[in-house]
Amino acid sequence: MRTSVSKSPTRGTRIAAASGALVVALSFASTTAAFAEVKDNGGAARNDSDNTASLRASIADGPAKNVILLIGDGMGDSEITIARNYAYGAAGQLPGIDALPLTGQYTTYSLYKDGANKGLPDYVPDSAATGSAWATGTKTYDNAISVDIDGTPQNTLIELAKANGLRTGNVSTAEIQDATPAVQVAHVGARSCYGPDSASCGADALENGGLGSISEQLLDTRADVTLGGGAASFSQTAKAGEWKDLTLNEQAAKRGYQLVGDVAGLEAVTEASQEKPVLGLFTAGNFPTRYAPTTATVGGANSAVTCQESAGRLPAELSLSSLTDKAISLLDSDSEKGFFLQVEGASIDKRDHSADACGQIGETIDLDEAVQSALKFAEADGNTMVIVTADHAHTSQIVDSTPPTSLSTAVTTVDGTVMKISYGTAAAGGSQQHTGSQLRVAGYGPGAANVVGLIDQTDNFFTIANALQLNRDLSSLSASASVALQKATFAPGEDLAISVAGLSGDRQLTGVIQSEPVNVPKTDVLNGTAVISAQAPTELGEHTVTLTGSQSGKVIEARFSVTPDGNPLPQPTDSAAPPVAGGIGGGGTGAIGAGPFAITGAEAGPLVVLAVLITALGAALIIRRRRQHSAANS
Amino acid sequence: MRTSVSKSPTRGTRIAAASGALVVALSFASTTAAFAEVKDNGGAARNDSDNTASLRASIADGPAKNVILLIGDGMGDSEITIARNYAYGAAGQLPGIDALPLTGQYTTYSLYKDGANKGLPDYVPDSAATGSAWATGTKTYDNAISVDIDGTPQNTLIELAKANGLRTGNVSTAEIQDATPAVQVAHVGARSCYGPDSASCGADALENGGLGSISEQLLDTRADVTLGGGAASFSQTAKAGEWKDLTLNEQAAKRGYQLVGDVAGLEAVTEASQEKPVLGLFTAGNFPTRYAPTTATVGGANSAVTCQESAGRLPAELSLSSLTDKAISLLDSDSEKGFFLQVEGASIDKRDHSADACGQIGETIDLDEAVQSALKFAEADGNTMVIVTADHAHTSQIVDSTPPTSLSTAVTTVDGTVMKISYGTAAAGGSQQHTGSQLRVAGYGPGAANVVGLIDQTDNFFTIANALQLNRDLSSLSASASVALQKATFAPGEDLAISVAGLSGDRQLTGVIQSEPVNVPKTDVLNGTAVISAQAPTELGEHTVTLTGSQSGKVIEARFSVTPDGNPLPQPTDSAAPPVAGGIGGGGTGAIGAGPFAITGAEAGPLVVLAVLITALGAALIIRRRRQHSAANS
Repeated sequence: MRTSVSKSPTRGTRIAAASGALVVALSFASTTAAFAEVKDNGGAARNDSDNTASLRASIADGPAKNVILLIGDGMGDSEITIARNYAYGAAGQLPGIDALPLTGQYTTYSLYKDGANKGLPDYVPDSAATGSAWATGTKTYDNAISVDIDGTPQNTLIELAKANGLRTGNVSTAEIQDATPAVQVAHVGARSCYGPDSASCGADALENGGLGSISEQLLDTRADVTLGGGAASFSQTAKAGEWKDLTLNEQAAKRGYQLVGDVAGLEAVTEASQEKPVLGLFTAGNFPTRYAPTTATVGGANSAVTCQESAGRLPAELSLSSLTDKAISLLDSDSEKGFFLQVEGASIDKRDHSADACGQIGETIDLDEAVQSALKFAEADGNTMVIVTADHAHTSQIVDSTPPTSLSTAVTTVDGTVMKISYGTAAAGGSQQHTGSQLRVAGYGPGAANVVGLIDQTDNFFTIANALQLNRDLSSLSASASVALQKATFAPGEDLAISVAGLSGDRQLTGVIQSEPVNVPKTDVLNGTAVISAQAPTELGEHTVTLTGSQSGKVIEARFSVTPDGNPLPQPTDSAAPPVAGGIGGGGTGAIGAGPFAITGAEAGPLVVLAVLITALGAALIIRRRRQHSAANS
Repeated sequence: MRTSVSKSPTRGTRIAAASGALVVALSFASTTAAFAEVKDNGGAARNDSDNTASLRASIADGPAKNVILLIGDGMGDSEITIARNYAYGAAGQLPGIDALPLTGQYTTYSLYKDGANKGLPDYVPDSAATGSAWATGTKTYDNAISVDIDGTPQNTLIELAKANGLRTGNVSTAEIQDATPAVQVAHVGARSCYGPDSASCGADALENGGLGSISEQLLDTRADVTLGGGAASFSQTAKAGEWKDLTLNEQAAKRGYQLVGDVAGLEAVTEASQEKPVLGLFTAGNFPTRYAPTTATVGGANSAVTCQESAGRLPAELSLSSLTDKAISLLDSDSEKGFFLQVEGASIDKRDHSADACGQIGETIDLDEAVQSALKFAEADGNTMVIVTADHAHTSQIVDSTPPTSLSTAVTTVDGTVMKISYGTAAAGGSQQHTGSQLRVAGYGPGAANVVGLIDQTDNFFTIANALQLNRDLSSLSASASVALQKATFAPGEDLAISVAGLSGDRQLTGVIQSEPVNVPKTDVLNGTAVISAQAPTELGEHTVTLTGSQSGKVIEARFSVTPDGNPLPQPTDSAAPPVAGGIGGGGTGAIGAGPFAITGAEAGPLVVLAVLITALGAALIIRRRRQHSAANS
């Protein structure tokens, strides 16, 4: 007498990944779906019969070649529901956000930094602490950008992905220095340390011996693709360091970045790499929103409005979805390398703070379109994990009746009925507050099963790092680094080509030439390699080039001699040590000039290669004699 | 260079079901877990390494023998987080709610009943519409108890489970007439139609031809186990129907219920069945709460409190967890039959309405303990699905700073820090509003995979009906019903035993004896069977007993003769039809008296059996001549 139930299926679709990373899109369209009304038995159901098999099929083991992490800033379950109701109806489906087959909840709390509560939970986090959590796997305090509660920098997913040879991207509708994009590329104690002029940088400022402002560290971290707003900070001038007195734009150009600021510029970019990373900043500050703002008032939910497109909206080519597409196309161009891409829809949060219902709805829809872009690529690729979540919950609530003392707005949705949205955590003109609720996290693709159940925000770091099989030990990634010179003996002031390889765990290096101390400038390490064009000291005798990886702390050395004519001195009869090249502790490779020999610059094959590399870098660095502080490299 | 990541594991545990319904509890305790601090890298992570395999293991195909559905009324993600933070800490885990391995979100909107918006979404539902959604699979309007927007009753999970031969239970900390328990056992247009005295019943009142109040329909639906509050309504007196002028308590006793009202009474109950269902009502209204109430005020979050146990709390034997244990033990005593049990923690919602932070926290913890009870049984049983969710989101929000215009309360949590909770949807003294956010839904066991992803509240109906393999067509469940009499010919006024079998789709039947119309009273059908003790008409000649299943509409007939002495008349020579017993349309079984024969009451073996059954029923019903309306049986 007991039989299986059949019922009206959903009108939506859900994406499922077959196990073994064979990814397929399942459409649950049915012959009867079009005829079921929401009011009918089963008419509102979203599942079609039994989803056990499709859930199983959506679980794929890692590793994944690529990971795309999409963050809706402030996109709690309430904000998702509001956007769905408005744009697709209560019974509808956000085509991106709602399509991910694997879902869970995560906790978002931060920690107190100081005082008696140090290390204890702060139940309502900010975007800095929350972003740091998934970017590094470490809980920290509000305001922190990827440093722990003691201020110690924590390696980020973009940094680790890059160190592991992957391509990396960072896209946001915010100023690129805003917390969510910043957590992947910088380590500062105060999130407002945007540029060299930011007073909040304090000890993080270059001139104070710090790692520099967020914008300066962004250039150091050197993701392959960076797209967003926040161009203003790049007009500021570095106050210290290798690029002192240059604007950050000038610095970026010198360091090989492709700088773009408009649609034409972006469309002209056809490749992105460590040698030629793309820095596209399209607005001075945050992107304008999709929808014009609405103003919530006490009693405001008594008159319903329809959202209007914002007059200042950026062209479609610069929508979050378009930027996501562009970033993916640039990152995926190398079929050998995988990539990690973070995409943020930033202004869901910002409009929620402003009690702007239409504003937050438009930004959520924008993010949803970016999710659609990511899923479309992931489905076709078959080896990409996509995670969609938020950083923290927010204030907006769907209510039945106009709240008596709180701000509210009413909107007429696509359903044709009125949705009332309340903002009750701040008064008019104040900033509505983040809230501390657990959040939805959703995933697709290899490794995404780790989002199901109750997890913490920090779990996302491990889920992604695991999926990409990232070695998180930068020291081990630089362990076999080596350095070599083009020959063993130089004339005073002669061109010196310092060639580094295998320094994969590092993004920069610094160094010194002794016994006459000459600082080797902070130099970008690209794919574990760096080439530094220098000049031999004028002091005759034995010298050592000592280089230190800025991130790994790995030390590598090469020795050379300076002679009056650049030729080797006659071999003495006693056992003077020969020139040595390579890493300390053995394992060095690429040693050149092991023993007395002489190659002129014009004749030196290796040097020609190096010169070409240097040109490509746009960073032919000349050692300048100085005694100034070296850049901090913790 | 890319390796697998290891990190500090979670301090929590998660329950996983191995595929093939072999259920195991997985503990992620690790040798290093005890030493990781939340502030450390990985210290806050909840997953231990890769959970892909454990997620796979948690997915089990249906069917399930049993289903336990636990509802936290008003328990949105915010309420869950608030309770976790308070009682277990932000990094802690609710041992029940957080332990379910399969998680998703669902939409909760209701529909408008009237006017231009009829059938369109109402974005903020009440507990009646939401409960009706999962109880019946049909979206309906606020205030509706398992009727659709046109007022048509929709079959509920308890009704269907019972019709399919399963045992059923209904447990709540609310008045048992409150919306969430009511949706499983009644069909009324206004949720406040609690008892015969409720003015809101209108057309649903028995005296107006309706199905009766919620309390009266509860007795009709006859779950095996019903435990909760709401005894007050059972002191009311039926105004019409078979039990007119009796209180509902008296009616329940007459219909075979075991009525209990205290710990001793409940402990004395050792079995529950259709013959002897348990109705335990322990308070006149709702249960008192676990924690004493806190009063939120504007500015109230500036001084933190610790929740105090309520002086009026019921004894531990009547906690929701204890009642859940009791219900399970009663329902699981028959190893042949599976069961469906709904458990509600009702006052999370009620305390949220009252802006009572400690109140809602205590009720959430209470529900969590009930979830632990359910999971403990399900783990041991290995063939039980558990679903934990809520009906609608609610108003409470965790905020960072005391909101300027909204009510708030601050509590000191187990972490030792302060959590501020805001109530911003109503003014002081008003009822805080439900909110329209999507909700967490979590599952465990065979078939529970259907909760993952984005579903609708109505999906839960199908998930459960599928898992239990319920035939939802009551007509087909009663299709082979039959009726028989103990013999074919009776003396005027002689005892008549009407025996019904196979009426599984029905909970009651009504009927008539003709040609002299005598109403057969509304009679409970137990496990498809009913026995009605009646008296033969005084009018000589051919008569027909026509019975109609109240739910299926199935009509069954038996014919008999009344003769002066109860003996068959001599066979006429013309072809008079012989007495007929059994269902219309063939397939009838159990025909007695096919052809002329006579058995006295004292000699009739079948009648003795029937009499025993009747005694067990406590419902030996005598047909009374009347012309009054018959009970509605739609």
